[in-house]
Amino acid sequence: MNLLAFGSLAFDQVETPFGKSGKILGGSATYIAMAAAHEGAEPGIVSAVGGDFPTPHMAALRKRHIDLEGVQIRKDEKTFFWSVRYHNDMNTRDTLETQLNVLGGFKPVLPENYRHARYVVLGNSDPEMQSQVLAQIENPELVVLDTMNYWMDHSRPALLKVLKQVDVLAINDEEGRQLSGEYALVKAVRKIRGLGPRIVLIKRGEHGALLFHEDAVFFAPALPLESVFDPTGAGDAFAGGFAGYLAATDNTSFENMRRAVIHGSALASFTVEAFGTEKIESLTGEMIEVRLREFLSLTQVDIALEKQL
Amino acid sequence: MNLLAFGSLAFDQVETPFGKSGKILGGSATYIAMAAAHEGAEPGIVSAVGGDFPTPHMAALRKRHIDLEGVQIRKDEKTFFWSVRYHNDMNTRDTLETQLNVLGGFKPVLPENYRHARYVVLGNSDPEMQSQVLAQIENPELVVLDTMNYWMDHSRPALLKVLKQVDVLAINDEEGRQLSGEYALVKAVRKIRGLGPRIVLIKRGEHGALLFHEDAVFFAPALPLESVFDPTGAGDAFAGGFAGYLAATDNTSFENMRRAVIHGSALASFTVEAFGTEKIESLTGEMIEVRLREFLSLTQVDIALEKQL
Repeated sequence: MNLLAFGSLAFDQVETPFGKSGKILGGSATYIAMAAAHEGAEPGIVSAVGGDFPTPHMAALRKRHIDLEGVQIRKDEKTFFWSVRYHNDMNTRDTLETQLNVLGGFKPVLPENYRHARYVVLGNSDPEMQSQVLAQIENPELVVLDTMNYWMDHSRPALLKVLKQVDVLAINDEEGRQLSGEYALVKAVRKIRGLGPRIVLIKRGEHGALLFHEDAVFFAPALPLESVFDPTGAGDAFAGGFAGYLAATDNTSFENMRRAVIHGSALASFTVEAFGTEKIESLTGEMIEVRLREFLSLTQVDIALEKQL
Repeated sequence: MNLLAFGSLAFDQVETPFGKSGKILGGSATYIAMAAAHEGAEPGIVSAVGGDFPTPHMAALRKRHIDLEGVQIRKDEKTFFWSVRYHNDMNTRDTLETQLNVLGGFKPVLPENYRHARYVVLGNSDPEMQSQVLAQIENPELVVLDTMNYWMDHSRPALLKVLKQVDVLAINDEEGRQLSGEYALVKAVRKIRGLGPRIVLIKRGEHGALLFHEDAVFFAPALPLESVFDPTGAGDAFAGGFAGYLAATDNTSFENMRRAVIHGSALASFTVEAFGTEKIESLTGEMIEVRLREFLSLTQVDIALEKQL
């Protein structure tokens, strides 16, 4: 176990212009861990499920060699449930229902071997809980945190506290603006870096992702996809693929992070091509290799510059 | 003269959150030709101005070795005037006033040496006029056309006619959707290629640009800029930089077009950093070289793929 994934294991119910899923396997920890496992990391999940969480869902995670020792099973409670409807443009959505259930009063307790995780991804959740997880980990190499507007509005002090302890913040443009109070991206990132995270990952969906690292910036495009079936989990798969690649190579240089952003983008691009975890569950190494090649051919260019500046 | 720039020479009046310009030099042909000249092309403009168009504006173009033989000067008429107000996000704008003036009844007539131009950029304008210009050119190597929603609504048959004769269509996402009736970009581009253009350039402003060429696609990012002062002319500078690079190298391979898109993006990135033509007029080769280097470092990455597929 070299990558700790904290977040939800969930039932998702998803409606898109292409159809409606039943109650399927979902949750941030699911996508983070599956993506990280594809990158060769050894993920372990910290979460909780109810007695209604089906054995095949656990088996789907175990099949990817994901450690589930950190998953509390509360037989008398129900699993987290989230229902969502995407609009026609697939960029906006309405949450129809959220039932916290077992995650409502969750107190994360880490198994002994989780406490030495070198790589940590804290999926979008209550920043108090994110802090509780971090407090139990000894000297991690890299901590990635995902969050959203809701916590900026309702738990700002707790969010600011946990931000001081993370290396990478993964958010979208709008969240970056809200957190910093700055409209222009470069200024927003500068302010956010003052709050703690050395590195800021701006997720832009179909417009790719930006990696800000000290004074340098790297941009990974999104592949122009034939069709997007279900955006659910794309951000988590991106964070999981990013951190998973870093964990598998155990190298946190900027050069390696550039590669990691491409790997994360590749995992996210698969995720949206089918409902829920369908595509990310069935990926092969060769499919990922082909996709990485498409990403590279999308932006790589050979320009001879005359002067060495 | 190896690159013909057809479009407006204009007075622009621009309001942004940062201030308001007086009546300054503007127009699509101005930006196209200036950008192309910076890339080493030898542009000539086809347009018309009134007796009110000041000598210093003509001098600013001539200083860049831009051929003005194709510019009709109608002493008794007034120059095209456009007034615009940008919203706070700089991505949306309201046209406050458009006075066609001398361009209203303009009949383009090309000087003899313009008729052999190998590279042609048809700036956004009435597709009937774009056709009239094309009809006077003998066997061009590459024709780039810019257009907008207005012509799709009001002159669709004329637009479809001229599209059959162009190689590259430069538009934004929304225009691509409107022209094709397809929402998904990949499908929209396929339909547009069925209308004539072999190559489709999708301009996305702060989200970069995509080059679709047969079954291949290339993506050029936009630089995350500290501040955007005035977006006016960015699309024209992009098209002019793109075509200017191709003209200067006289090479229309896909590999060279990838380079050309980066060059176009660099020129566009300068344009937005000051009001009107202020920045693009004062550029040096070294500034462009430094900017190209920034573009390359933004996306270039070294990923070793295991298999040769």
